[in-house]
Amino acid sequence: MAARPGGHNLAVMNGPKEKVLTLDTMNACVKRVEYAVRGPIGVKKPFTEVIRANIGDAHAMGQKPITFLRQVLALCVHPDLLNSPDFPEDAKRRAESILQACGGHSLGAYSNSSGIQPIREHVAQYIQRRDGGIPADPNNIFLSTGASDAIVTVLKLLVAGEGRCRTGVLIPIPQYPLYSAALAELNAVQVDYYLDEDRAWALDVAELRRALCQARGHCRPRALCIINPGNPTGQVQTRECIEAVIRFAFEEQLFLMADEVYQDNVYAEGSQFHSFKKVLMEMGPPYSTQQELASFHSISKGYMGECGLRGGYVEVVNMDPAVQQQMQKMMSVRLCPPLPGQAVLDMVVSPPEPSDPSFTQFQAEKQAVLADLAAKAKLTEKVFNAVPGIRCNPVQGAMYSFPRIELPPRAIQRAKELGLAPDMFFCLRLLEETGICVVPGSGFGQREGTYHFRMTILPAAEKLRPLLEKLSQFHAKFTREYS
Amino acid sequence: MAARPGGHNLAVMNGPKEKVLTLDTMNACVKRVEYAVRGPIGVKKPFTEVIRANIGDAHAMGQKPITFLRQVLALCVHPDLLNSPDFPEDAKRRAESILQACGGHSLGAYSNSSGIQPIREHVAQYIQRRDGGIPADPNNIFLSTGASDAIVTVLKLLVAGEGRCRTGVLIPIPQYPLYSAALAELNAVQVDYYLDEDRAWALDVAELRRALCQARGHCRPRALCIINPGNPTGQVQTRECIEAVIRFAFEEQLFLMADEVYQDNVYAEGSQFHSFKKVLMEMGPPYSTQQELASFHSISKGYMGECGLRGGYVEVVNMDPAVQQQMQKMMSVRLCPPLPGQAVLDMVVSPPEPSDPSFTQFQAEKQAVLADLAAKAKLTEKVFNAVPGIRCNPVQGAMYSFPRIELPPRAIQRAKELGLAPDMFFCLRLLEETGICVVPGSGFGQREGTYHFRMTILPAAEKLRPLLEKLSQFHAKFTREYS
Ligand SMILES: Cc1ncc(COP(=O)(O)O)c(C=O)c1O
Ligand SMILES: Cc1ncc(COP(=O)(O)O)c(C=O)c1O
Repeated sequence: MAARPGGHNLAVMNGPKEKVLTLDTMNACVKRVEYAVRGPIGVKKPFTEVIRANIGDAHAMGQKPITFLRQVLALCVHPDLLNSPDFPEDAKRRAESILQACGGHSLGAYSNSSGIQPIREHVAQYIQRRDGGIPADPNNIFLSTGASDAIVTVLKLLVAGEGRCRTGVLIPIPQYPLYSAALAELNAVQVDYYLDEDRAWALDVAELRRALCQARGHCRPRALCIINPGNPTGQVQTRECIEAVIRFAFEEQLFLMADEVYQDNVYAEGSQFHSFKKVLMEMGPPYSTQQELASFHSISKGYMGECGLRGGYVEVVNMDPAVQQQMQKMMSVRLCPPLPGQAVLDMVVSPPEPSDPSFTQFQAEKQAVLADLAAKAKLTEKVFNAVPGIRCNPVQGAMYSFPRIELPPRAIQRAKELGLAPDMFFCLRLLEETGICVVPGSGFGQREGTYHFRMTILPAAEKLRPLLEKLSQFHAKFTREYS
Repeated sequence: MAARPGGHNLAVMNGPKEKVLTLDTMNACVKRVEYAVRGPIGVKKPFTEVIRANIGDAHAMGQKPITFLRQVLALCVHPDLLNSPDFPEDAKRRAESILQACGGHSLGAYSNSSGIQPIREHVAQYIQRRDGGIPADPNNIFLSTGASDAIVTVLKLLVAGEGRCRTGVLIPIPQYPLYSAALAELNAVQVDYYLDEDRAWALDVAELRRALCQARGHCRPRALCIINPGNPTGQVQTRECIEAVIRFAFEEQLFLMADEVYQDNVYAEGSQFHSFKKVLMEMGPPYSTQQELASFHSISKGYMGECGLRGGYVEVVNMDPAVQQQMQKMMSVRLCPPLPGQAVLDMVVSPPEPSDPSFTQFQAEKQAVLADLAAKAKLTEKVFNAVPGIRCNPVQGAMYSFPRIELPPRAIQRAKELGLAPDMFFCLRLLEETGICVVPGSGFGQREGTYHFRMTILPAAEKLRPLLEKLSQFHAKFTREYS
């Protein structure tokens, strides 16, 4: 093999060389990504326990898995157990039918990239039931590695153009930071529309229009993301609002992305979950026949909280068939979503029926989790709103409160000196002094000059009240300290 | 809310509107992706069974999961089983220690984005044992959703520049098509270097140099990908070759990516797996202290074949710490790799020890799978090489043969008329007439004018010989038909 003139020895002798991959040479889009939710960690201070009220991770906060889901999953993973007398008949039947649909009857085989076919069919049936009989087509359903994966996949399809023709994507502020992160990574333009804090974080179409018009000056807005029920806001959209959003998207030629991972998490009286798909279909043509929509769901939230298994799906509606084929192709590069997540999704979308032996326990466990969350949602709102300087909208759904906090000017000044966002400074101090870990509003976006934090409603009921009180007391102390 | 002049009604009345997302408006990079491995499917013809020798999916081809892995996983999934007398003591201990490291002691909690800490430590210990004591740092190990995920993540970091400054990445031809697909999607430049079929698909540094020099005319080559043992080639690189590659990468300032997912799949006498990490470290400074390397592993291959669980890891060596932080951040956007895959990775990197009750069975099962694969590798080579017009290099490792086939000029002509690559035409006809599904060489890349197909060695031993013979007979018939 021919030596390159001066090659080897020269390089070796030149001493420490530059790395190939440095902050200067790496992907600039990745560098621009900000990701805050995992919050400030790693402090040792005067408390016995860090309480992680920062992530929507139910099991980590002590919620027990739903028995039926885990029984079936154990049977799928280790089919020898099918001979054990310790499992109910319907769990065994379910495991057998899932395994029947797996290559070599094993969760260890790759599935189709879009997911196991019978599970896609069960998802379609679930959607149809949920939406009062409006049909869903299994071919429009793609299973995914959590909802995150599907959301990024659809965004990726939408990204195109350069300069003023770059794809713009409208996202709510405050938002779930997957959106801002993915848009930065994909080099798309993030177009912010602000939710209306004074109307319990409702979406206002006039504000959508403002954001859109403004964005058209510097990019090509092509998609509109909705999170309903909202993270971090806890807001649940009304049917009227959804209709108005659909009309807006249609008029303005925007692809709709409806993040509906909290569809089972609705607590407030008078609030109800309406899927974008259902409303779209009920509006009739031209909306139902032309408006493009992708709707996302996940096994991470709801009553099951199976975050670690990474399961979810997207349903696409009115998508150009050629684009849909491209999406399929893109998914096949990563082979397939994890099979345990697919299996659990199957159970979530077709739970035990009244005649099944597992029905009663399944329903009892599910209702207990949801009732507990509802109580904690109410408690959170009540405790926070009793505190001067904290104002908390009703937690109508999802798993979070996003209270607004007043911060004294001197605290804001001090934060600036430290190079921190003021609410980040507040959250850091809170963590250091109390062990309570919440996420500053600046991680989700908020109107200039307002400050918030996001706290989950997931801590165990008996811990939540003292926690809320401790947090409120800290806010009072913090306010005094900097006044 | 103010109506946009002419907005709503106009749009509604204008009848069918253009879709927002079409082939014309979608992400052009995604459109360029080609992905062939899943092969031509959906033919009904004169055979009783489709034999999928196209995908490296052991369980789908009938290989049984390793008992210990599934026992522990079942225990993790459904901890009630910890009280069952049907599980060995060490499986229970292992499950308990994995659960101990999970949030809320549940596989349903998100883990750290880089994976469960003790599992990262076990991976580091595994690497250290594998590499004869050369240390590995758990902080340099990131668990992933299969190796695919980690490979795409590292490629994504490397992508930068525009026009003639776009990042170029050297990949072997033939390659595993994840690489070409990911590079197309990321809008990086694929730089092909050809493996030497006449030397059993060995890598030739002179050819690397040729490819690099040529690429420098139109892009900025910054990384070099190696697949060892090779997919689809089945080649296992010698230590000398690896040293030469490292020297080359160092001289030429290339980030090394070593895809070592088949590290347990080495069959040929005289062949041995050498990790890039080990060779790099043994070469000493400046290589060991400066050469950047990412090495990938997976639970999908080896003797375990747990593809569906989606587990794997990457170890990075000499990576700029600031870049490593960026990688960590990027991973946290997708939350975490699936916990069941992490759990199984734990067992793969720290299997039962001689004093453990599960040791004997684990070793027996592992050795049986590997011995079976070794026998099938040999058989494949032997049968194919007895056939005129087929030439098959030794299957030294991995799970594939990649024989070269002669195709008569009239078949090539016919394929062109049909708009098909000639070997695609061959593979389609093979599938239609025999039910044997293999992947054409054109899906992996090959030297112009040569034709191949990739066939896995995974079909059950008793099926493989008839399969190979049927395929050989078909080739003879096909050759006659078009001569
Ligand atoms: C609004 C929203 N969308 C998507 C996700 C992603 O969840 P996963 O990927 O676990 O399904 C989350 C997780 O918290 C979320 O809150
Ligand atoms: C060379 C090579 N690398 C990576 C992969 C990805 O495997 P996984 O994502 O299942 O770990 C494969 C799968 O076949 C492969 O052959």
